[in-house]
Amino acid sequence: MATASLIEYADASPEVRAVFDDIKRTRNIPDVNNFWKALANHPETLKRTWETLKEVMRPGALDPLTKELIYVAVSVTNNCDYCIHSHTAAARARGMTAAQHQELLAVIGMASQTNALSIALKVPVDPQFLC
Amino acid sequence: MATASLIEYADASPEVRAVFDDIKRTRNIPDVNNFWKALANHPETLKRTWETLKEVMRPGALDPLTKELIYVAVSVTNNCDYCIHSHTAAARARGMTAAQHQELLAVIGMASQTNALSIALKVPVDPQFLC
Amino acid sequence: MATASLIEYADASPEVRAVFDDIKRTRNIPDVNNFWKALANHPETLKRTWETLKEVMRPGALDPLTKELIYVAVSVTNNCDYCIHSHTAAARARGMTAAQHQELLAVIGMASQTNALSIALKVPVDPQFLC
Amino acid sequence: MATASLIEYADASPEVRAVFDDIKRTRNIPDVNNFWKALANHPETLKRTWETLKEVMRPGALDPLTKELIYVAVSVTNNCDYCIHSHTAAARARGMTAAQHQELLAVIGMASQTNALSIALKVPVDPQFLC
Amino acid sequence: MATASLIEYADASPEVRAVFDDIKRTRNIPDVNNFWKALANHPETLKRTWETLKEVMRPGALDPLTKELIYVAVSVTNNCDYCIHSHTAAARARGMTAAQHQELLAVIGMASQTNALSIALKVPVDPQFLC
Amino acid sequence: MATASLIEYADASPEVRAVFDDIKRTRNIPDVNNFWKALANHPETLKRTWETLKEVMRPGALDPLTKELIYVAVSVTNNCDYCIHSHTAAARARGMTAAQHQELLAVIGMASQTNALSIALKVPVDPQFLC
Repeated sequence: MATASLIEYADASPEVRAVFDDIKRTRNIPDVNNFWKALANHPETLKRTWETLKEVMRPGALDPLTKELIYVAVSVTNNCDYCIHSHTAAARARGMTAAQHQELLAVIGMASQTNALSIALKVPVDPQFLC
Repeated sequence: MATASLIEYADASPEVRAVFDDIKRTRNIPDVNNFWKALANHPETLKRTWETLKEVMRPGALDPLTKELIYVAVSVTNNCDYCIHSHTAAARARGMTAAQHQELLAVIGMASQTNALSIALKVPVDPQFLC
Repeated sequence: MATASLIEYADASPEVRAVFDDIKRTRNIPDVNNFWKALANHPETLKRTWETLKEVMRPGALDPLTKELIYVAVSVTNNCDYCIHSHTAAARARGMTAAQHQELLAVIGMASQTNALSIALKVPVDPQFLC
Repeated sequence: MATASLIEYADASPEVRAVFDDIKRTRNIPDVNNFWKALANHPETLKRTWETLKEVMRPGALDPLTKELIYVAVSVTNNCDYCIHSHTAAARARGMTAAQHQELLAVIGMASQTNALSIALKVPVDPQFLC
Repeated sequence: MATASLIEYADASPEVRAVFDDIKRTRNIPDVNNFWKALANHPETLKRTWETLKEVMRPGALDPLTKELIYVAVSVTNNCDYCIHSHTAAARARGMTAAQHQELLAVIGMASQTNALSIALKVPVDPQFLC
Repeated sequence: MATASLIEYADASPEVRAVFDDIKRTRNIPDVNNFWKALANHPETLKRTWETLKEVMRPGALDPLTKELIYVAVSVTNNCDYCIHSHTAAARARGMTAAQHQELLAVIGMASQTNALSIALKVPVDPQFLC
């Protein structure tokens, strides 16, 4: 159960509806997902978060699927239940295959292991890695 | 300062040298980096970690640069100093441009923010994300 | 489902009942919440945790609401489901308004983002911050 | 050592200088701190991060000192070296006393402990905490 | 709900069945637990993870119960719901008493608190701890 | 550099000296380590933390070395630089061999990997693990 109410479109202020409309139009979906309904309690945060997300995730030097894979990697490492589900779905919507999903997980698992070993051993950084 | 000694090639057992040789050959470098020298205190862990890493990071459904970007994302989220330096360097060696690095960071930052917001709000997962 | 049983007042030892009684009296509530019932498996930990919590959270240089906001911030960052729910409720009981909740979340989200960026960039600490 | 170069004002583009100027003016300081110099490699991220930070940290339903205390709490929990130093300094600049700093730390320490205990025990959330 | 399907023995490839058979034989159980069924989407990761786990957790310089206690400590700190449940059960199966479970939790809680305090205070490492 | 001054014995209040004396006597060491000097800014936290640590770490259902191994596991997972160094040293002082240290690290690394995989796959908990 959420720690704030979910604001539905029918109950939203014009300011919130404008953001919801832009999300629906940009993503071509009939309704926004719960994350945005929860953020709608704070219209300023809703607007800023959506606009930043749109800017950060648009195609650039990295393509949208690569960005979603990175998003999933961070969400798994932060153990964000909602984000793992929503961004795994988003990655699939952008074309992530089952094989890519499994390799993504293998890299996340491997990195988690060597991260822990490096931290435990307090390995000094090699000079060639300090550019 | 490391919590275990760094084993140099000259002081290594044949078992350790065999792994060091394979790392040097595979990566075409004159010496292994400190992570492997620290792991060499436990030849079994050294061998297994290297063989797994080689298998996980080889080209597959995801290309090596994408895998390194994911590795950096996990390492940043786990706050592993050594791993951030070594895998940022590895990503550059695989062709990561400055623009790609900056977009990688922007996605990591954005994901960290929405992860925190989703967690704080305990947003219930939408049914369409549960495949 | 808990990894240890929840001890109800009726089944508790005199030592545990004494702590439960103090919690109920201090907070003016009819029953203790599940956290204390789970801790009651270890009466020593139960007593010490309650006494420390009482001491740490009492009004001092910081007022109780500010302390609860800090508690929520840590709980969100540690992703503790139970603690987010219980301390968000506690903050509300101490007067946290909806507007304050939203600003609390905005700060947590912003800090999470700049934390990730600083960690990724390994920004050296400016001398003026080292007092 | 940073994983990206620090951009000094003298070497910055007009777009970056405009943000640097706003930071210096807003905070009444002669130079921006290293975080902004590192972000300046990505002018878009620099601008967005600064504008969001300014908006999030301005006085609102919560006062600026309370916001800095929350920022420190998140930064400690995320173990961000740079952020702990810079935001502890910022909290002091906003009037945090030594006594308040110590209570802030006591709450962070206590929350970290009860977070771990709640997570280990998988305590079910009490119905009264689910609003 | 899992982000990948759970592969049952009846539907598994010969390669997956061979690993499932080894898990069942080694642990003397009628069916593998869900973790392995989820990993079975990626036979290579399934095989490698099982073989490494078997090697790492076998009796050595540390006994199997001590290894399970360490596994629980890491899983609690990483807040892995599944792992807390499965490894608390595994520790019990290896003889962990209720008193040992409570002391394990007390140490985890205490370490979490002093970790947070040390991080917040940025305590410099004493020379005698640097071997 | 610490975010609070380190209080030396010569400059300490009688209340702080009493705790320092107890630490030195209990551990049979000539001076307390920096963690306690930093905590001494808050005599109440110093006293409570020391007394709790003494109680939690004393021999009980788990022996002191096992408790130190668990402490290291939590500290590595929380990435606490100071705590990794001080508790690795404490474990060595309690008899941890090089082989035990390496197995400790192997378990921490393995747990970190399966934690990440379980979290990413959102594996549902098997009924037999819910006691």
